[in-house]
Amino acid sequence: MSTYRIAVIPGDGIGKEVVPASLEALEATAARFGLRLELTGFGFASAEYWQRHGTMLPDDWEATLRGFDAILFGAVGWPAVVPDHISLWGSLLRFRRTFDQYVNLRPCRLMPGVRSPLAGRAPGDIDFLVVRENTEGEYSSVGGRIFEGTERETVLQETVMTRVGVDRVLRYAYELADRRPKRHLTSATKSNGIAISMPYWDERVAAMGESFPGVRVDRFHIDALAAEFVLHPDRFDVVVASNLFGDILSDLGPACTGTLGIAPSANINPDRTAPSLFEPVHGSAPDIAGRGIANPIGQIWCASMMLEHLGHPAAAAHLLGAVEDVLALGPGEAPLTPDLHGTGTTAELGHAVAERV
Amino acid sequence: MSTYRIAVIPGDGIGKEVVPASLEALEATAARFGLRLELTGFGFASAEYWQRHGTMLPDDWEATLRGFDAILFGAVGWPAVVPDHISLWGSLLRFRRTFDQYVNLRPCRLMPGVRSPLAGRAPGDIDFLVVRENTEGEYSSVGGRIFEGTERETVLQETVMTRVGVDRVLRYAYELADRRPKRHLTSATKSNGIAISMPYWDERVAAMGESFPGVRVDRFHIDALAAEFVLHPDRFDVVVASNLFGDILSDLGPACTGTLGIAPSANINPDRTAPSLFEPVHGSAPDIAGRGIANPIGQIWCASMMLEHLGHPAAAAHLLGAVEDVLALGPGEAPLTPDLHGTGTTAELGHAVAERV
Ligand SMILES: CC(C)[C@H](C(=O)O)[C@@H](O)C(=O)O
Ligand SMILES: CC(C)[C@H](C(=O)O)[C@@H](O)C(=O)O
Repeated sequence: MSTYRIAVIPGDGIGKEVVPASLEALEATAARFGLRLELTGFGFASAEYWQRHGTMLPDDWEATLRGFDAILFGAVGWPAVVPDHISLWGSLLRFRRTFDQYVNLRPCRLMPGVRSPLAGRAPGDIDFLVVRENTEGEYSSVGGRIFEGTERETVLQETVMTRVGVDRVLRYAYELADRRPKRHLTSATKSNGIAISMPYWDERVAAMGESFPGVRVDRFHIDALAAEFVLHPDRFDVVVASNLFGDILSDLGPACTGTLGIAPSANINPDRTAPSLFEPVHGSAPDIAGRGIANPIGQIWCASMMLEHLGHPAAAAHLLGAVEDVLALGPGEAPLTPDLHGTGTTAELGHAVAERV
Repeated sequence: MSTYRIAVIPGDGIGKEVVPASLEALEATAARFGLRLELTGFGFASAEYWQRHGTMLPDDWEATLRGFDAILFGAVGWPAVVPDHISLWGSLLRFRRTFDQYVNLRPCRLMPGVRSPLAGRAPGDIDFLVVRENTEGEYSSVGGRIFEGTERETVLQETVMTRVGVDRVLRYAYELADRRPKRHLTSATKSNGIAISMPYWDERVAAMGESFPGVRVDRFHIDALAAEFVLHPDRFDVVVASNLFGDILSDLGPACTGTLGIAPSANINPDRTAPSLFEPVHGSAPDIAGRGIANPIGQIWCASMMLEHLGHPAAAAHLLGAVEDVLALGPGEAPLTPDLHGTGTTAELGHAVAERV
């Protein structure tokens, strides 16, 4: 029997509600597929921890977390207490870099029972993945200000792309596309306007393509691609993008499928030299936190992606199938939360999914 | 009688078709409102010119164009003949910087008779403007490569924001919002991830806001904002954004309203130290060029924005009204082009609008 050690970090706001609600479904799936999970909860990476310790993480966080096979993460951010740049750069963005989680993988998929804002689209029509570079690019934090406070004040911020950094995420995206039936990869660029870094990205996309002759590749400028997501979301299979472009596309995609509130994201270290981290796309949602009405589906979908990453695709698919079954029942027959027009609570919806497993 | 000197530059591809088709409606409007237009055509800023001269523009282009009150521009780009970075940086992007056209203004508006990809939206629901910084920011072209061709190859590209550059576009956006009934300004940022330049942008938005106490301001990270465009496009009035974010939003907005093929853009020098330039959002469209089926509405809408900029809002509104009337007739009664499900030609549709003027 395989045993996996999972670090569970609820974080802030609704993270503290959806994480517990997701565990029952996760454990039911593990039991059904003969997997042993050892779950260990941590209170750091939260505003509460920060209030008590003045830092987001304990000194030994890296050594502590390295011992785990994966991290199930809720949400971080509580601006009323900790400024965002401290909470995010002090936890989530730090995890991504330290643990070389260089792929951020986000599915965009029409789900049964979920209303898409796009006219005339039905489940099956839209089902693609965004592969986002997750450690460098536009998020470099290199730069600064000069002539501060004067009329000639100037601010510089560097985008940094490295051969290693670009190639490894491209390889992941090509390999992923190569395993899917459509074998279609779309690259997001803006080489006509961002004339140094993005042409480099394009070159590496072309170079890597030589190792994947079976993958059909196309390329859109990010402005046109954002428009395409709205106009022809059915045309995509795997979309690969830089850190910033991937950030935009992986919110826009789920917005188009109506799943922004329930979409998962996987921060993956494909080389498995450190744990990967699974967090829903929604944030800590201060506006609804503490009311027990947050939708736990994003967190459960994260648990499914985690099982896939741990090498158990059948278990992952089974759990996601349970989610789809419950969504398909609709608010009349399933305890869906208010965002899905139901009157269920976080715990009830989590339980309903667990029961279907 | 006011006289205006207009430089007319058709450029490439369908630019050469939609520009002529727009002039009849423009001239009819001018006649009706007692404006004298002197139109002067130019063949530069095109692949043809490049083939003949090896440059996109003649040596004296700047002095030549400075003598005009405005530039009506078609489209530039014909990658089969000239690489995009040469044609764009050699004309359009050069105009923007040289003539300090620091505002790129793009309306996002549901039009009668035009199908939006969003479910359940009707004309009147969506009507906002994107104000894009148009000369600096992410389009700096400062940077380079080091360790080329090796495993440690690294590429840097600088985002450059200046106090002058940021403040002047923000001032324009605030003033514009202040004149509109809703007095609502939305700023696009990404200060949680792009941690040097975007916090500076946020600071300047806040500082400029002190001079406009009547304007309600909010702020979205670009990922969330892209999603909001799809989910709640009715919530916007004026949206201000950096060069890159504005580029993305001003394609995404018209995609949401179904008007990507007919949307205009105005590259404005608000200080009137040089001519402003009006070009449709659609490009040169090599795939349909030369067939006489391109939609001239974007170009006509540009002419309307030009009249507005020249100080004739009534004439501008009248021309746009004629466009809306013709669109509202639908493909049964108006010679709409194939993109609008009609069988009309470029010339026929241009003529139909001119007749309504
Ligand atoms: C062609 C390209 C360089 C240009 C831009 O990004 O500015 C275009 O997309 C636009 O929006 O006018
Ligand atoms: C919170 C923010 C820094 C983060 C990002 O931009 O990476 C978030 O938007 C995400 O996509 O995970």
